[in-house]
Amino acid sequence: MPTVFEESLELHARHHGKISVIPKVPLNDRHDLSVAYTPGVAEVCREIARNPASVKNLTIKKNTVAIVSDGSAILGLGNLGAAAAIPVMEGKAALFKEFADIDAFPICLDTQNPEEIITAVRHIAPVFGGINLEDIAAPKCFDIERRLREQLDIPVVHDDQHGTAVVVLAALINALRLKNMQPHEPRVVINGAGAAGTAIAELLLAFGVRTIVMCDSKGVIHNGRTDLNNEKIALAQITNVACLEGQDASGCVIGLLEHALRGADVFIGVSVANALDAKLIATMNPQPIIFAMANPEPEIMPDVARAAGAFVVATGRSDFPNQINNVLAFPGIFRGALDNGVRVVTQEMFVRAATELAACVENPTPDEIIPSVFDKRVVSVVAATIK
Amino acid sequence: MPTVFEESLELHARHHGKISVIPKVPLNDRHDLSVAYTPGVAEVCREIARNPASVKNLTIKKNTVAIVSDGSAILGLGNLGAAAAIPVMEGKAALFKEFADIDAFPICLDTQNPEEIITAVRHIAPVFGGINLEDIAAPKCFDIERRLREQLDIPVVHDDQHGTAVVVLAALINALRLKNMQPHEPRVVINGAGAAGTAIAELLLAFGVRTIVMCDSKGVIHNGRTDLNNEKIALAQITNVACLEGQDASGCVIGLLEHALRGADVFIGVSVANALDAKLIATMNPQPIIFAMANPEPEIMPDVARAAGAFVVATGRSDFPNQINNVLAFPGIFRGALDNGVRVVTQEMFVRAATELAACVENPTPDEIIPSVFDKRVVSVVAATIK
Repeated sequence: MPTVFEESLELHARHHGKISVIPKVPLNDRHDLSVAYTPGVAEVCREIARNPASVKNLTIKKNTVAIVSDGSAILGLGNLGAAAAIPVMEGKAALFKEFADIDAFPICLDTQNPEEIITAVRHIAPVFGGINLEDIAAPKCFDIERRLREQLDIPVVHDDQHGTAVVVLAALINALRLKNMQPHEPRVVINGAGAAGTAIAELLLAFGVRTIVMCDSKGVIHNGRTDLNNEKIALAQITNVACLEGQDASGCVIGLLEHALRGADVFIGVSVANALDAKLIATMNPQPIIFAMANPEPEIMPDVARAAGAFVVATGRSDFPNQINNVLAFPGIFRGALDNGVRVVTQEMFVRAATELAACVENPTPDEIIPSVFDKRVVSVVAATIK
Repeated sequence: MPTVFEESLELHARHHGKISVIPKVPLNDRHDLSVAYTPGVAEVCREIARNPASVKNLTIKKNTVAIVSDGSAILGLGNLGAAAAIPVMEGKAALFKEFADIDAFPICLDTQNPEEIITAVRHIAPVFGGINLEDIAAPKCFDIERRLREQLDIPVVHDDQHGTAVVVLAALINALRLKNMQPHEPRVVINGAGAAGTAIAELLLAFGVRTIVMCDSKGVIHNGRTDLNNEKIALAQITNVACLEGQDASGCVIGLLEHALRGADVFIGVSVANALDAKLIATMNPQPIIFAMANPEPEIMPDVARAAGAFVVATGRSDFPNQINNVLAFPGIFRGALDNGVRVVTQEMFVRAATELAACVENPTPDEIIPSVFDKRVVSVVAATIK
């Protein structure tokens, strides 16, 4: 029996990619051509020139999203470049259509320079009603997203940040409910301070979580470190304000992941395989919440985590319960932004999206804290919050 | 009854554009998702990183063309900008799929600076197997095409130049056949020295036409003019070498269109409505060939041209016989380039394409010198010449 990797290679080689661009108007005779193309189309061009806002109604801009990547951080594979990013962006385009009836197209950029990425996206923007940034490495992804939001009049969302954060928060809402904890109560450790980890921290804080300690590959992020980039310096201002064992004189946690985990209630891993083990879980508060989302190998396997006392375990994988998958978020986020004419999707909207996504699970259990990606309600529920 | 313009506006407002992006692989269950997206897709990314050439087989690059415009020369409407260009590029994308099963996507650039256009196209190139430049004003279009051909490893074709030239040459081949003229015999006047006029002149010369006089809005293009840009200076070196009435001392035709037309056998208009009249036709050689391709109003209406003695009349319009329409060329040109791995489409290929396109009309008559755009043979016949 072929592996999923062999099956995937075979599928891609057989179909030569996963999306197709088709006409949605008839082109069967000269009359059809004269209406869809010349000479009739000239009037549509003139109307847009006269009334620029009409482009959103008269063209695909109304329903079309660019999926933009420079291939600098593809899945968990790292920097493989623009060409190797195409299969992921095509997959995302296919999901956009399948789940939210959005027409999305992959834009894989042959540059990894932030200024050039910003310029390229600005230049191609006229056709699109939204920009989904994807698999662009941290920390440049933050500046690229921020500046494009300032420069464009269409929504720009880096899905690795905000899509992930929305689904994590939704899962956390239900997990905390199961533990009868209020948002301000848990001690949360986020392992991984890239695009996803940073956005998760910011969204959890916006939701009302108070105590977050973040770790990167060097250990706990705190004010005393001299090796932090600007984004991590900013994180050190908003996280790690609690006093835990191992604290230094200023009240910050220092040291390694193991120091952060002592007495923690929640582990959120957006890091690497095997970053967590049973011994570390034993140092956390009883019955902790473990989100081990490294792909394809999680930080700890669910059975090991449960044997070590974890109460709820979630991963990014479809072959375990509680799959934390961005597809629960990005189709609805863009469906809402396009339909509701939202120019900037805010943290408040993401918090509402996570709250409503969590509410799709009427009776959460440790094995069901998040809806299935095939739950048909999800897109419209999320979309309704983006306004 | 609504006009074609009213119908077109209504169609565009109802459908919000003319193309859609759809999945071509199943996405019905978790297994489908794991093969089309994560985790399976990771192996496809890794394969492309290992073996860069595989991108042409494993992604949409194999069958996908970018239709790139800056909106600086939209149809006959002029410089209306990127947004107003979208309906034309969408229409073209729809035709690509309908006629040649090519997936094409509009890239309308929010810049009209040649350097920025070149950079933007270079940056978005990874996803595409070919670049169709469209509605970019002369003379910058020439440099943009030339430099992109040098910089990219995929075919780049400015359709306003070469698509038009191929169909004009095909029509001329049959028109000359009807008049029993050899390629080197006719005196040809081309009115309009922009993208199309320039490419037509070059392709006719490559085919074996010897005597061409070109006119722009100021009159005949010749060596003695001091107001010519570089491209027109180059045209003055390869056209207007015959000695006609009105010649100056160096043997060049000077003056206006009326001077060029005296004794000409062929008028090719890529200019403006009413540029030609019956009185001017009367000064040409008997039974001239008149291609009046200004859109939507031709240089002269076909009935007027025929009443003035024209033997063959062609226009760009679908409501008269002999429609000279690029859709006879570009789908087959790109079908051939993609299927045959052609990196640069050459003049020799365009001459062959025109010759075979002409041969699709088995028994040309003055009212049928060019196949119908709905002739199903056309795409494969043209594609077979691009290799």
